[in-house]
Amino acid sequence: MEFPSKLVEDAVNEVSKLPGIGKKTALRLVLHLLKRDEEQTESLANALVAVRSRTQYCRKCHNLSDNELCGICASNRRDASIICVVEDTRDVLAIENTAQFKGLYHVLGGIISPVEGVGPSDLQIDSLLQRLQGEDAGEVREIILALSPTMEGDTTAFYLQKKLRPFKLKISTIARGVPIGGDLEYADEVTLGRSILSRIAYE
Amino acid sequence: MEFPSKLVEDAVNEVSKLPGIGKKTALRLVLHLLKRDEEQTESLANALVAVRSRTQYCRKCHNLSDNELCGICASNRRDASIICVVEDTRDVLAIENTAQFKGLYHVLGGIISPVEGVGPSDLQIDSLLQRLQGEDAGEVREIILALSPTMEGDTTAFYLQKKLRPFKLKISTIARGVPIGGDLEYADEVTLGRSILSRIAYE
Repeated sequence: MEFPSKLVEDAVNEVSKLPGIGKKTALRLVLHLLKRDEEQTESLANALVAVRSRTQYCRKCHNLSDNELCGICASNRRDASIICVVEDTRDVLAIENTAQFKGLYHVLGGIISPVEGVGPSDLQIDSLLQRLQGEDAGEVREIILALSPTMEGDTTAFYLQKKLRPFKLKISTIARGVPIGGDLEYADEVTLGRSILSRIAYE
Repeated sequence: MEFPSKLVEDAVNEVSKLPGIGKKTALRLVLHLLKRDEEQTESLANALVAVRSRTQYCRKCHNLSDNELCGICASNRRDASIICVVEDTRDVLAIENTAQFKGLYHVLGGIISPVEGVGPSDLQIDSLLQRLQGEDAGEVREIILALSPTMEGDTTAFYLQKKLRPFKLKISTIARGVPIGGDLEYADEVTLGRSILSRIAYE
C-alpha cells in the first residue's frame, strides 16, 4: 500500500504492530480517528502512555495495580487462607466475574512454554514460594491451580505441584468437565471422557 | 468487568471507543502493550497524536496529505483530464493499487446517507464544481464516479450526475459485473442480471 501521507503511514505501521490488527484494520482505525475530535485521539494516546508508564504490579500477588498492594490483597473481606494461582490478569477478571471466589490470587505473568522460550524462572513462581514462607506463612491452607486445560497449563501445574509439595498444603485444580448449557453431543471426546472419570456422586 | 487498576480501566475504555473493538479485545491490546517496551507504547501514542493534529487535506482533491497539495495532484505524470470521484482515502488506495488509473482524484469525504444524516453539503461536492470552474476549467474531459454499488452510492452518483451535467463532460461509472476469479453460480442475482444487461461485445 502506498499511503498519501507519511503521517498516516507511520500511524498505520504503529497500530498494526498490535496483535490481531493488520494494515487494513489499522488504516480503518486511523481514518476513524481523523474523522473524530482531536481530543479523542489525545485522550486515547494519553491513556496508553499512562497505563504503560504508571501501572504497577501488586508486590504480593503481582496482579496489575495502581498501588503497591492491589485492591484484592489490601481488602480485609477476602479469605487469606486460599490462594488461586492464575496465568494473567484476564484470568483474575474472569474469576472475579463469577463471584464464586473470595480468596486471594497469585498471578504468574505467563505459563511455562518451551516453544515460546518461557521457563519457570520467567514467571512469578519464586515469589509464590517466598510468599508462603514469608508474610503469609501459616495462614495459607489451600492453593488452587486455575490454569488453562492445555499442555502448557498442565506442564505449569505439574511443576507447581512439585514445588508446593514441601509446604504440605491442600493443592487443588479447577474442575474439568462438560460446560454448563452445552449440548452433550457437542462436547469433545477428551472432555467428555474426563467428565465421566471425574464424576460427582449425589449426596 | 471490574478492573484491578484505574489506569488499565481508562486505557481499555479509550481503546474500546474505536470501531469494531470491544472491551475484551481492548484489554488484550492494553495487556500486550504492558508486556512490551515502554518505547513501543510511546511511539504508538505519538504517531496517533501526530496523524490527528498534523495531517492536512489536499486543497485540490481533499485526499489526506502531508502538504498543501497531495503527491498525486502535485505529480506531473498524472493525466489531469480525468478525475475519479471516490468516497474516501481507502478508495484512492484501492484504485492506486490496481495501477490501472493515471488520472487525478476527488475525495468526497463520505457519501449521501439520509439515515446517518449526511447530506450533499457535508461532502466535498461544491469544491468539485469549483474545481471544474476554477483552476481545472477546460482541462478536464471526463469524470469517473467510482462509488460503492450500494443504495447510498447510487444516490450520490445520481446527485453528482445532475450537478455535473451543465459542464458537458463525459461522465462514467465503474463497471458492475461478476467478479473476476469468482464462480458464476455464486454470483448474486442482481449482479449477474446486471452483467448480462451490460454485456460487452467482442471486437
